[in-house]
Amino acid sequence: MPTNEQLLDIFENYLAQTEFPAEPERLYAPIRYSLSGGGKRLRPMLLLLACGVFSDRTDHALPAAAAVEIFHNFTLLHDDIMDNAAVRRGKPSVHARWGENVAILSGDAMMICAYRLLSGVPADKLPRILAMFNTMAVEVCEGQQYDMDFEQKPKVSVVEYMHMIELKTSVLLGGAVTIGALLGGASEEDCRKLYRFAIELGLAFQLQDDLLDSYGDERLGKAIGGDILEGKQTYLMITAMSRADEPAREILRHTYKDDTLCDGEKIARVKAVYDRLEIPRLTEQQITVRFERALALLDTLSVDAARTARIREFAVGLMNRKK
Amino acid sequence: MPTNEQLLDIFENYLAQTEFPAEPERLYAPIRYSLSGGGKRLRPMLLLLACGVFSDRTDHALPAAAAVEIFHNFTLLHDDIMDNAAVRRGKPSVHARWGENVAILSGDAMMICAYRLLSGVPADKLPRILAMFNTMAVEVCEGQQYDMDFEQKPKVSVVEYMHMIELKTSVLLGGAVTIGALLGGASEEDCRKLYRFAIELGLAFQLQDDLLDSYGDERLGKAIGGDILEGKQTYLMITAMSRADEPAREILRHTYKDDTLCDGEKIARVKAVYDRLEIPRLTEQQITVRFERALALLDTLSVDAARTARIREFAVGLMNRKK
Repeated sequence: MPTNEQLLDIFENYLAQTEFPAEPERLYAPIRYSLSGGGKRLRPMLLLLACGVFSDRTDHALPAAAAVEIFHNFTLLHDDIMDNAAVRRGKPSVHARWGENVAILSGDAMMICAYRLLSGVPADKLPRILAMFNTMAVEVCEGQQYDMDFEQKPKVSVVEYMHMIELKTSVLLGGAVTIGALLGGASEEDCRKLYRFAIELGLAFQLQDDLLDSYGDERLGKAIGGDILEGKQTYLMITAMSRADEPAREILRHTYKDDTLCDGEKIARVKAVYDRLEIPRLTEQQITVRFERALALLDTLSVDAARTARIREFAVGLMNRKK
Repeated sequence: MPTNEQLLDIFENYLAQTEFPAEPERLYAPIRYSLSGGGKRLRPMLLLLACGVFSDRTDHALPAAAAVEIFHNFTLLHDDIMDNAAVRRGKPSVHARWGENVAILSGDAMMICAYRLLSGVPADKLPRILAMFNTMAVEVCEGQQYDMDFEQKPKVSVVEYMHMIELKTSVLLGGAVTIGALLGGASEEDCRKLYRFAIELGLAFQLQDDLLDSYGDERLGKAIGGDILEGKQTYLMITAMSRADEPAREILRHTYKDDTLCDGEKIARVKAVYDRLEIPRLTEQQITVRFERALALLDTLSVDAARTARIREFAVGLMNRKK
């Protein structure tokens, strides 16, 4: 079994030699650009590692791994249009560089390319894997829709928020590991457990992302407090709003819009409320609960513990990335 | 075998009872809106009729027929954003009614729903049908990209134009009949012939669309000469440019931008050049060549002539729609 680093190399090489036509240039160049932008390759890695839990062969899972990575990048392309984001991974977003029309269309083509790669799985597994992919894909759309709806919603509960991030970010991890497990020959029972492992891991990861936005040290490509300045409804903000008295809620609601304050003052003021309400500690607690739940699920799989070492190592590495 | 009218009813009923979730509302309401907008249901009808050439059963082809119709409507949704079209089939376009973000995302969800329905075909046919659908879908994107590229291209040849419309509009008909034929148990040879039938029919149909824009009588939802006023590079314009002397080319290039003329004058001036260059006759000629080629292909199929009567009748009806 290759090490996790070797597996990542294998995947990067496979993705790099995935060919796209030269013409029309403005359709395919943005696709190559998106896929070469780096990124952790989290989803294809989870797919390959999930396959590796059950099988010593993972090469046959490379096309499906590429499919989930291409699908993920398609969602980023379209999300960047919808969020009007000019930068992605430190470079201009596709719509900033080529315009909105190209971003819409290249995104569409990327989704089709993902399905094309997925269609290459063994025929006996295709219906099941396709069904998983379809469900996962439409749930990601649902999550994105709820995220956009919440921007206009005055009061979002913690439950609603967790449901939204489960759909928007976690189900893709869940789909990836399920597809990987199926390709490795896992039972439906083990697939269900791995799916839940990935959901819990995804939620922990997203909560950590929320926490690091405001309390991180150094963020590659992201400044501290961006969510606060946007007035974004993250786990921190929603939990704080649910615990705060009315004066504190006023501060939370209005600070980011207060033109008399500079950015640094806005961030400090909101974080002071967060600190007083113990938001960092409560968030860390949730992260830990979810992450430990994820790891515990790995122990319940019907394989020897040694077989889950690699995926466990990967999950731990993921959560430790910026501490 | 049901009549073509009955088949259309059967399809409309099937589509109407295809369920979409209630929530999130802003994701699914636009999908229902798009699909209930009427339209000729050309692509699903061709799919069902192609199936019916080879088999007396067509019910099992309904999910795939719905898939191609949903895919087609997805392309219209995204195309309307890219073309900034406020109206579709006499009603506000989805992005005019709900905004661009909803149109992008609902379109994405529609494409996934199309794949979901397609996934329901018999497992032994799924790889082949999926491959056809994937190829067709990405080619539609390529066609749309070329169409957008051509807006900035000073000189588009007839060959380039025909290639673009083949990709943008005809391959979807080709894919539809191929999938229908496969579901009917056709041989690969007959599939190839039907595919070419649909391509030729699609080209004839698009050329007729170009002709009717400027020379039609009454156009439901479209005024006469819209393409002329946009300076759009259609078959008429491109053929005219290739035949015209320089003074005539100047007229063709600049008239639509001439602010001293009202719309009626612009249209009359360009049509006068078209008439002088025999563009209507040449276009009619191309339409006839393509259409007759299409019908001739039906005769080469390895079935009794009676089995192609319905699809032949449908094709004839399509081309006769506005004469």
